Amino acid sequence: MNVIEQKETDKIPEPTLRRLPWYLSNIKLMRDRGEQYVSSTQISKEINIDASQIAKDLSYVNISGRTRVGYNIDDLINVLESFLGFTRPHKAFLFGAGSLGGALLRDSGLCHFGLEIVAAFDINPTLIGTKSDGIPIFHPNDFLAKMQEYEDVRIGVLTVPINIAQETTNMMVDGGIKAVWNFTPFRIRVPQGIVVQNTSLYAHLALMFNRLNLINKE
Amino acid sequence: MNVIEQKETDKIPEPTLRRLPWYLSNIKLMRDRGEQYVSSTQISKEINIDASQIAKDLSYVNISGRTRVGYNIDDLINVLESFLGFTRPHKAFLFGAGSLGGALLRDSGLCHFGLEIVAAFDINPTLIGTKSDGIPIFHPNDFLAKMQEYEDVRIGVLTVPINIAQETTNMMVDGGIKAVWNFTPFRIRVPQGIVVQNTSLYAHLALMFNRLNLINKE
Repeated sequence: MNVIEQKETDKIPEPTLRRLPWYLSNIKLMRDRGEQYVSSTQISKEINIDASQIAKDLSYVNISGRTRVGYNIDDLINVLESFLGFTRPHKAFLFGAGSLGGALLRDSGLCHFGLEIVAAFDINPTLIGTKSDGIPIFHPNDFLAKMQEYEDVRIGVLTVPINIAQETTNMMVDGGIKAVWNFTPFRIRVPQGIVVQNTSLYAHLALMFNRLNLINKE
Repeated sequence: MNVIEQKETDKIPEPTLRRLPWYLSNIKLMRDRGEQYVSSTQISKEINIDASQIAKDLSYVNISGRTRVGYNIDDLINVLESFLGFTRPHKAFLFGAGSLGGALLRDSGLCHFGLEIVAAFDINPTLIGTKSDGIPIFHPNDFLAKMQEYEDVRIGVLTVPINIAQETTNMMVDGGIKAVWNFTPFRIRVPQGIVVQNTSLYAHLALMFNRLNLINKE
């Protein structure tokens, strides 16, 4: 038996944090194929990343492998999922239940990765008072009251139009939100100590279209 | 009048392509506030990026400003939108109409940014033959026939479970798909010349959770 324990969360490099979910998904596939042990070398073959890089990345999570055998695959999956925060529910409010926001409300997959959207806010009168996939939608004026009512909400998902992206962020932060998952193409500003995670689908589209054009010309 | 023309799409640096949509969204806000001209310096003040960087990024799009006045704001918006590919519809097929895939089908916002999902594929018999927001869902066996039927589909949106991510990608590429927008946490492999754009919401979640934990400990 290996002793497994989550390390003190040091400031882990962002590239490592981006790679760990890749390893996790690949290791799960190996488990599905019946593997019981897995080594950095095996993961390396699967995903084409240097084995030494993988070993280094995995050194951030506190799990020890056995020489010539590797990591126990179930243990490694459990440790990685817990380390990445996917096993603990993180409550979130969503701001802007329009097209993309409404889609995220209906994406039940997010809760398997630790994000639990407990309520949404929108100024659209036809949405206020309704539920989307069981998640209630309120007027933004009720935000502070709902922060009291739903305890431990520290994440805000930002899917509002860009012209109110900053003011909505300010409201969220003033009300006690500690991390903003920003889906708008607007570069929001926040006070120091507030986490911002930008996910700009439109920037990704622009990148993809551009690269696609280059192929065309070859 | 400025002469506006899209430059030959050179291999534009990825960071530039990521920043241009930020500029675009901010410039639109300035237009909403009644501005008619905009300079790199003004954009710089809005979004806290060095003016010389902005000028350099904008040099990739062929638009010339007037000394001491800046760019005509409407022209700049039009040129940027066209340059980023948001004004032209890019037809796409979506693979995997489950939780996230279904959500993307309902996100009508994507088409305002140039992505037009024209059909989806799923093996779920309760989905096959139905429509989601007007978009028909077919069995993957019909993929090749649909590639003939819908012309010019070159983008595939990948939202399948990870255990079939690679085989679905292979099928897409064999059938003529040139760019894969990969939403799975799986690191797919493609032949040279095929564009892959990874958008791993789960990796972004992991990053956000980790940074949030660090705040807690301060």
